[in-house]
Amino acid sequence: MTVKPSIPKGTRDFTPVEMMRRNYIFQTIRTVFEKHAYLPIETPAMENLSTLMGKYGEEGDRLLFKVLNSGDFTHGVDMNEDSPTRLATKICEKGLRYDLTVPFARFVVQHQNEITLPFKRYQMQPVWRADRPQKGRYREFYQCDADVIGTTSLLNEAELMQITSEIFQKFGIDVVIKINNRKILSGIADVLCASDKITDICTAIDKLDKIGKENVCQELMERGLSCEAIDKLQPFFDFSGSNTEKLAKLETIFAESEIGLKGVEEIRKMLEYAEMLAIPTEIELDITLARGLNYYTGAIFEVKARNVSIGSISGGGRYDNLTGIFGLKNVSGVGISYGAERIYDVLNELGLFPKSLECPVKAIFINFGEKEEQYALAALQQLRAEDITAEIYPDKAKIGKQMTFANNKGIPFVIMAGEDEMKENAFTLKNMETGEQQKLNLAKLIEELQ
Amino acid sequence: MTVKPSIPKGTRDFTPVEMMRRNYIFQTIRTVFEKHAYLPIETPAMENLSTLMGKYGEEGDRLLFKVLNSGDFTHGVDMNEDSPTRLATKICEKGLRYDLTVPFARFVVQHQNEITLPFKRYQMQPVWRADRPQKGRYREFYQCDADVIGTTSLLNEAELMQITSEIFQKFGIDVVIKINNRKILSGIADVLCASDKITDICTAIDKLDKIGKENVCQELMERGLSCEAIDKLQPFFDFSGSNTEKLAKLETIFAESEIGLKGVEEIRKMLEYAEMLAIPTEIELDITLARGLNYYTGAIFEVKARNVSIGSISGGGRYDNLTGIFGLKNVSGVGISYGAERIYDVLNELGLFPKSLECPVKAIFINFGEKEEQYALAALQQLRAEDITAEIYPDKAKIGKQMTFANNKGIPFVIMAGEDEMKENAFTLKNMETGEQQKLNLAKLIEELQ
Repeated sequence: MTVKPSIPKGTRDFTPVEMMRRNYIFQTIRTVFEKHAYLPIETPAMENLSTLMGKYGEEGDRLLFKVLNSGDFTHGVDMNEDSPTRLATKICEKGLRYDLTVPFARFVVQHQNEITLPFKRYQMQPVWRADRPQKGRYREFYQCDADVIGTTSLLNEAELMQITSEIFQKFGIDVVIKINNRKILSGIADVLCASDKITDICTAIDKLDKIGKENVCQELMERGLSCEAIDKLQPFFDFSGSNTEKLAKLETIFAESEIGLKGVEEIRKMLEYAEMLAIPTEIELDITLARGLNYYTGAIFEVKARNVSIGSISGGGRYDNLTGIFGLKNVSGVGISYGAERIYDVLNELGLFPKSLECPVKAIFINFGEKEEQYALAALQQLRAEDITAEIYPDKAKIGKQMTFANNKGIPFVIMAGEDEMKENAFTLKNMETGEQQKLNLAKLIEELQ
Repeated sequence: MTVKPSIPKGTRDFTPVEMMRRNYIFQTIRTVFEKHAYLPIETPAMENLSTLMGKYGEEGDRLLFKVLNSGDFTHGVDMNEDSPTRLATKICEKGLRYDLTVPFARFVVQHQNEITLPFKRYQMQPVWRADRPQKGRYREFYQCDADVIGTTSLLNEAELMQITSEIFQKFGIDVVIKINNRKILSGIADVLCASDKITDICTAIDKLDKIGKENVCQELMERGLSCEAIDKLQPFFDFSGSNTEKLAKLETIFAESEIGLKGVEEIRKMLEYAEMLAIPTEIELDITLARGLNYYTGAIFEVKARNVSIGSISGGGRYDNLTGIFGLKNVSGVGISYGAERIYDVLNELGLFPKSLECPVKAIFINFGEKEEQYALAALQQLRAEDITAEIYPDKAKIGKQMTFANNKGIPFVIMAGEDEMKENAFTLKNMETGEQQKLNLAKLIEELQ
């Protein structure tokens, strides 16, 4: 029986052109990470479910891909268990990595005696989520994370902004780095005398862009915030000015909120460091930024590309107690994550992929038959010795077929060497774009292709 | 509750040092693949189980990691099904990639309208097998495969040998490339008048190295081979001489076996091409080589490292009808696979990893406090602008602690700039290996670190 080939929904194959582009993205990010002394680690695709469960909320647990135990997975299990969720944890001990942060926390705790803190690591690996697939959202996608753990210095925050700036500069993508601080959000809740409602407030504020002021107030009222508190929230809705102006305003508003003032101080210090590092990218304090609230305890980052209607292409923040869940207390970390697929889409939309990525093969020798093949192979060896990526058509097919092959692959140069050329110890080089042809000796041929 | 962190058995975390070494392996292989015009592709970690099942034998099916269906996986399934194997296929639609060859075949068939044959692709991704973990055998490991499909030219076989030669030359590993051909094995079965017993004969011959001649004969007798046939097998046991001599001998023995003679002709042509390409690595015809018998239809490769007692570090061959299982007939391919973990072990055992991989960070600035930090940051920016990988200790910790940090990480240079240095616009550079110190201006500092 013939199986009609397909792949699971939400997953993708990558063709050579896509791979060349993706590798360009990974390589660019890797280079910047490494220049800033971040070191690579990798963790297994499968983690114990006990490591993953309960770390991403109820929704996250549902979205984990679970791996069936090997062998007789039914052994000693009541297969008539009513709840599929409970049954799943009995027949599956392992799950696929959902992000890179929890595995990193697990790594740090497990290897605490092998690593020296502060530990700056980067990690670029796929993650898997059983989300409903839709445009731009996949069930398998890559994350590129840089985190530093074991230091509370805000220099780290600044360095991550510098890395971000450098990465997007290399890509030629014009971005703005939006920053906030969880402590500022806590300060706002303080001012509203609604510290217990901070999650509701942040969730609502976060939607300001999308649903507008009226709806945010409506939502907060439904969530039990008093009219008085909502009134006090008004000034935060139209919070304009330079970062310095915003910080001055906040300082006044937070006169009575210790945590709010701490937030102002942290942002100020981060910006001071950013200035010392001469980060050229615009950094904008955005007090509505509330991503990853349950996670972050200090700085919050989000990167937006200008000129494209794609959401954030990067985000991160500081978490004071990430390794606590694995038993290692009081280790603070700060990190940022770059989404490869979002960056791909932006580069694609803006036409920013370097043209050199289109076809890595510089030239192909046409195969005219046994004698000519031998002549071509000797030359091909010389080209490769000079690090020129070249190939020879492996069969003596019709010339038209071989030319079509070169054309389809987008190979810029075709080299022909038949009887005539062999007599003259020469090669005919055809530029596939211009159609121009020239007869050259080997030295000149190499020169042309270098 | 605190979860004691661990990872599933047979899987591994990779620390920075291991990652640097692994990346060196991947990068070296990738460079050689690309120079020979092999193009990268990637396929998803999860494939439909229907793609994977039945492709690796019964044992293989058992070793596939199966991924539980999302949501209510019990819906419409008789959970009291007696056979766990059958039940597994009802509650799991997906499985983890077991190798790169079957996904590649699936890729070629699925994307046949997008790719131009002959198609040279490489793929370097992890695969997963629920094997019993043991020394050197993991449940998650990387394969690095190069295959060309859609051409029967033996030039491809020669090119794969050339690639192999170049890769191991770059690693500094002395190897021998062993070759055989499935048609030679068929010829041997012909000569023995036991074509129906070819699998038994090959399985037994393959063990010659391990169990010796006597035991091989014993095994073949048990498998129903006649005494006469076993007698005829004797000459193949002590098959010595140069490749040319071996081929001449085989030609005589195969006088009556058409397929045997075809095998001889193919090997001869491969060696002719190898000579044209001036492959410097020893290539040895080994007629006992019978790996992947159910797969390969032509050439068979195996690479062994000299001076280490590790099995084959690479292997491959030609398969005439790989895509047939997915409905695309008559597409011949030939490929080779390099095992990253085996290569790692060999490089490690022979001490061949470049020393430069040990610590990518060239220098670290000691952090003496606010003013000095600012002075150091300005210099750090200059170093990084010159592509020197450097960092600054992010906190003003005790000097001893900072020096220990540099030492533990193996950073070769420490830069100190306190009040004195600041006055002189200088930096003290300490070589951590020799202990030597010198005071330098910024330009000299950059020069020393470049």
